[in-house]
Amino acid sequence: MKAFGWAARDHSGHLSPFNFSRRATGEEDVRFKVLYCGTCHSYLHSIKNEWGNAAYHMVPGHEIVGVVTEVGSKVEKFRVGDKVGVGCLVGACNSCESCSDNLENYCSKLILTYNMPNHDGTRTYGSYSDTMVAPERYVVRIPDNLPLAAVAPLLCAGITVYSPLKYFGFTKPGTHIGIVGQGGLVKVTLISNSPSKKKEAIEHLGADSFLVSRDPEQMQAAMGTMDGIIDTVSAIHPLLPLINLLKSHGKLVMLGIPDQPPELPIFPLLMGRKTVAGSAAGGLKETQEMIHFAAKHNIRPEIEVISMNYVNTAMERLAKGDVKYRFVIDIGNTLATTKPKDY
Amino acid sequence: MKAFGWAARDHSGHLSPFNFSRRATGEEDVRFKVLYCGTCHSYLHSIKNEWGNAAYHMVPGHEIVGVVTEVGSKVEKFRVGDKVGVGCLVGACNSCESCSDNLENYCSKLILTYNMPNHDGTRTYGSYSDTMVAPERYVVRIPDNLPLAAVAPLLCAGITVYSPLKYFGFTKPGTHIGIVGQGGLVKVTLISNSPSKKKEAIEHLGADSFLVSRDPEQMQAAMGTMDGIIDTVSAIHPLLPLINLLKSHGKLVMLGIPDQPPELPIFPLLMGRKTVAGSAAGGLKETQEMIHFAAKHNIRPEIEVISMNYVNTAMERLAKGDVKYRFVIDIGNTLATTKPKDY
Repeated sequence: MKAFGWAARDHSGHLSPFNFSRRATGEEDVRFKVLYCGTCHSYLHSIKNEWGNAAYHMVPGHEIVGVVTEVGSKVEKFRVGDKVGVGCLVGACNSCESCSDNLENYCSKLILTYNMPNHDGTRTYGSYSDTMVAPERYVVRIPDNLPLAAVAPLLCAGITVYSPLKYFGFTKPGTHIGIVGQGGLVKVTLISNSPSKKKEAIEHLGADSFLVSRDPEQMQAAMGTMDGIIDTVSAIHPLLPLINLLKSHGKLVMLGIPDQPPELPIFPLLMGRKTVAGSAAGGLKETQEMIHFAAKHNIRPEIEVISMNYVNTAMERLAKGDVKYRFVIDIGNTLATTKPKDY
Repeated sequence: MKAFGWAARDHSGHLSPFNFSRRATGEEDVRFKVLYCGTCHSYLHSIKNEWGNAAYHMVPGHEIVGVVTEVGSKVEKFRVGDKVGVGCLVGACNSCESCSDNLENYCSKLILTYNMPNHDGTRTYGSYSDTMVAPERYVVRIPDNLPLAAVAPLLCAGITVYSPLKYFGFTKPGTHIGIVGQGGLVKVTLISNSPSKKKEAIEHLGADSFLVSRDPEQMQAAMGTMDGIIDTVSAIHPLLPLINLLKSHGKLVMLGIPDQPPELPIFPLLMGRKTVAGSAAGGLKETQEMIHFAAKHNIRPEIEVISMNYVNTAMERLAKGDVKYRFVIDIGNTLATTKPKDY
């Protein structure tokens, strides 16, 4: 079926209008009109082939909300008109130990939402486009009380933080968490290299304290005070200062993927039985749970809504960290106007 | 009080006879005659100042068994004649959260058994010597059915493996553990760069299988099969091949301290929610528990008993990995004969 979106055509990463096709709605598929799509920092790496796995034309987009337009005959949970979301993945083997444990995101055969082969050999295209189609299992329901634009970032950024907070035991009362690079969902010390972000972090984002990572005195004073650190930064940065912030048995959880491997200082890891771990998104069950959690507690990411034809400028600003805190593209209202008449 | 032992006098690491003094037996101290002392690979780093913290003269030795000769007035658990052991530490603050949790080994004020300042400003000397003195809390009881020479390595090498096996959940039935560099205590795949060790690993040490780390085909076939890996190797080596052996959510636990930090590959860590952690020895309660476990199950490390004046040759062989599997010095029977008459 015909689809229209914006694609990167080469490693310049420049995005432009693109006609392509998606599969017809299968028995277990949910088809939906895309309304909003968040802009994850990982798109930057992908469209410029910085991870070395780009296939062009590439339509990015994996923080997707929309409204159902068609369901397959075996779909049980969704009907036409339902508000739904799709995150980082649109498929997996559905039968391995990870999938059985609702951890499809760790299935060795997972299918990412864009820039990956589907089981049928076609390529996955993301949601910088008018429509999406995904198996029911990989679609979550969006409750009515959440504003759709603000939900979009929850589907990647939100679950990516929510999942390790639970898995690594950081939600116990009294736990002191550090978050490097971004705050918002928990009681935290925000760790940043930009002192200018302090006021907003404390007054607006709800951080309990703020630590400037390039200030040796502040870092020294905070040594050994944190139970866990969530590190969201994709740029290469040293791990030792973060490991030093941890208490004994503390855990540093990496969510970003720098393009060079950092050095791992072994001695401080041993002397406090400390852990450096990774975590990638979350399974569908947990993603749905997180959406309900956000709805119940009225949690909304801070976003900047933009139109489709602003996306290349947005990517430039994103590369400089110039966004508070997530660009969300209003696909529903602005994509169609970018369609060339003769294309 | 006078003591006699063998010390390194400079970063050549050469050991030779040395007269020194130890404190008198305090109220809470246990004094004992040293009978056997194991030879840990860490001594090599220490005596040659490869970790940059050596103070000479240095008497190494932290895998110690002996027989009690004097106890302080407040000592409750030990009497003259008891068989006892001391491991990697002889003191800590005894009041912090780590100490309260019986994790003295992670106290920020821990006092290592040799090459460290005591609380009173004197230097700690290890057990390449005729006597030791340590607070009761840092002394463990040795059951009668264990041969004393073979107990010695349990006090560092033994507890260093035992503790993370428990803490990281590797003792559950069905768990598949890899051990890099050394085997013995659990059902394991021994991972080694020496194919020549296979026969002995399977037939004698009880390993379930053997994996040659420099054989790409074997490593490829074993990818994603292990729940945990205990890495005992102190030499620098790449982490990626080991991380690739882990299942999703698997844990690589480092016990050795290479003198250069290895690179930490982030992407494979994220994609399987994998963990790289450190672990250092164990607390005193757990050390005593491990000794009782070894006694109950009749577990004895493989050792090569040597005399005191063989120690420099032993260190050379240790540096080449030429030992099955731990040198233990028969201090009780051979130290006195090395004492110069006019010294």
